[in-house]
Amino acid sequence: MKLLRVGPAGAERPVLQDRDGKHFDLTPIVADIDPAFWAQGPALVGQAHAEGRLAEIDIAGQRIGAPVSRPGSILCIGLNYAAHAAESGVANPAEPVLFYKAANTVTGPFDDVMIPRASQKTDWEVELAIVIGKTARYLDSPEAALACVGGYTISNDLSEREFQLERSGGQWSKGKSCEGFNPLGPWLVTADEVSPQELGLRSWVNGEARQDSSTADMIFGVAHLIWHLSQFTVLDPGDVINTGTPEGVGLSGRFPYLKAGDVVELEIDGLGRQRTVFGASDAR
Amino acid sequence: MKLLRVGPAGAERPVLQDRDGKHFDLTPIVADIDPAFWAQGPALVGQAHAEGRLAEIDIAGQRIGAPVSRPGSILCIGLNYAAHAAESGVANPAEPVLFYKAANTVTGPFDDVMIPRASQKTDWEVELAIVIGKTARYLDSPEAALACVGGYTISNDLSEREFQLERSGGQWSKGKSCEGFNPLGPWLVTADEVSPQELGLRSWVNGEARQDSSTADMIFGVAHLIWHLSQFTVLDPGDVINTGTPEGVGLSGRFPYLKAGDVVELEIDGLGRQRTVFGASDAR
Repeated sequence: MKLLRVGPAGAERPVLQDRDGKHFDLTPIVADIDPAFWAQGPALVGQAHAEGRLAEIDIAGQRIGAPVSRPGSILCIGLNYAAHAAESGVANPAEPVLFYKAANTVTGPFDDVMIPRASQKTDWEVELAIVIGKTARYLDSPEAALACVGGYTISNDLSEREFQLERSGGQWSKGKSCEGFNPLGPWLVTADEVSPQELGLRSWVNGEARQDSSTADMIFGVAHLIWHLSQFTVLDPGDVINTGTPEGVGLSGRFPYLKAGDVVELEIDGLGRQRTVFGASDAR
Repeated sequence: MKLLRVGPAGAERPVLQDRDGKHFDLTPIVADIDPAFWAQGPALVGQAHAEGRLAEIDIAGQRIGAPVSRPGSILCIGLNYAAHAAESGVANPAEPVLFYKAANTVTGPFDDVMIPRASQKTDWEVELAIVIGKTARYLDSPEAALACVGGYTISNDLSEREFQLERSGGQWSKGKSCEGFNPLGPWLVTADEVSPQELGLRSWVNGEARQDSSTADMIFGVAHLIWHLSQFTVLDPGDVINTGTPEGVGLSGRFPYLKAGDVVELEIDGLGRQRTVFGASDAR
């Protein structure tokens, strides 16, 4: 099932989009697509829809928010596609590289994002995002991991390369946590409808192709990542994992970094398409 | 004013501790010491106490929880004391080194913490923790920063050094985010009662002294840190900043790492004392 959140920022309502593209109000069934949703929400929504108890609504003209409310944590995997590691000038990692970005960076899939003050190197990164549906703690095997996935969505793991690589002693998070630096959406697709290692993912800047790869090229796949991370931390329902970006970013030197007025579009097979317009940093 | 949270994990109640060590129930005044508290909470509590409207309670025998509910983010500053940078084998940083740890690591100041499975290098770190009280975004100067502090508490920024330094391509968070790895408390002291750069901070393992320094030795002080971070991210009310640890940790090679049965005590002038018993990792 496809889940959306529709309405003004901070006041989004949960919505179901069915196979025919019709929309249904979920507010009588669940409060939000938030960490608490994952306990009973998918079953309640599925049942209500099957029984015809949901009211169809028209969302035309309304803002689409991120498909999940603010996560408890956003975990990010670095260098998870070989060609991107190469364009970044580093070897393939022996184990998943984990860093975090601030969870208040989440924005909607069509919201404007401001180029940070003093930024010269704002960069795009299309990524498959995992939304955790069930607590993952010391999982026994990668095979046990996929049962912990609630769903998937598109993430733009925006990065300021100077802040990331030159301003924090080699720790990347300072260039990952700027205001608005994690557009998510447009939809969340529940795990039962996604084959996570068979998805094409693509990005464009001002209509010109940038990234064009497949999640089949991940060094560490979704099941391995969740199993591995669960040995080092507890993944809670609602947590988001950005699974890494493929080649074709500005850091490669092949393309200019982003400037005010640029339009970034991201697409993943079956997960829709997002579009972000970049604005000038606000004046000092 | 000193604020505590008392009761079972996940069901703590907010409590005021006055200058005479008496305790007062805050539940009629505020829901919790959470991000929303900072808008009106300190003023409401102060006024209710001044007017004698708070009921005294006895907290003897009850669990003391972390003095804040789960933060939106935990920001950590690395290498912020020169002698600790030296014992870690690295130069003083030119700018604050920022990384994050998972916000679900927060535990109470007297709760047991489990040595993670497969850990050989679990390490203590006494730190002054800042709790943000007012949004900090592109602050004009360090002088403007202290007005964004809600209060201070003691943080144990627990670290697994192999996970941190050898298992994540140099990104530290994998060794910082294990279950229970951020004891906070016992109290939060509001900013009006704390001189943050004049505080002795100390740690002990099984009663033997480990760390014994002063926040006067920070490379980047509290005001500078908040101003600096606000250029790169938005700090929200309730966010916690671990401001770095002084020399005397296990990583120095001068002391053994922690094992099951060890007792770690941390103290900061005016902020109380916490005590953590370490348990064995649970069996596979």
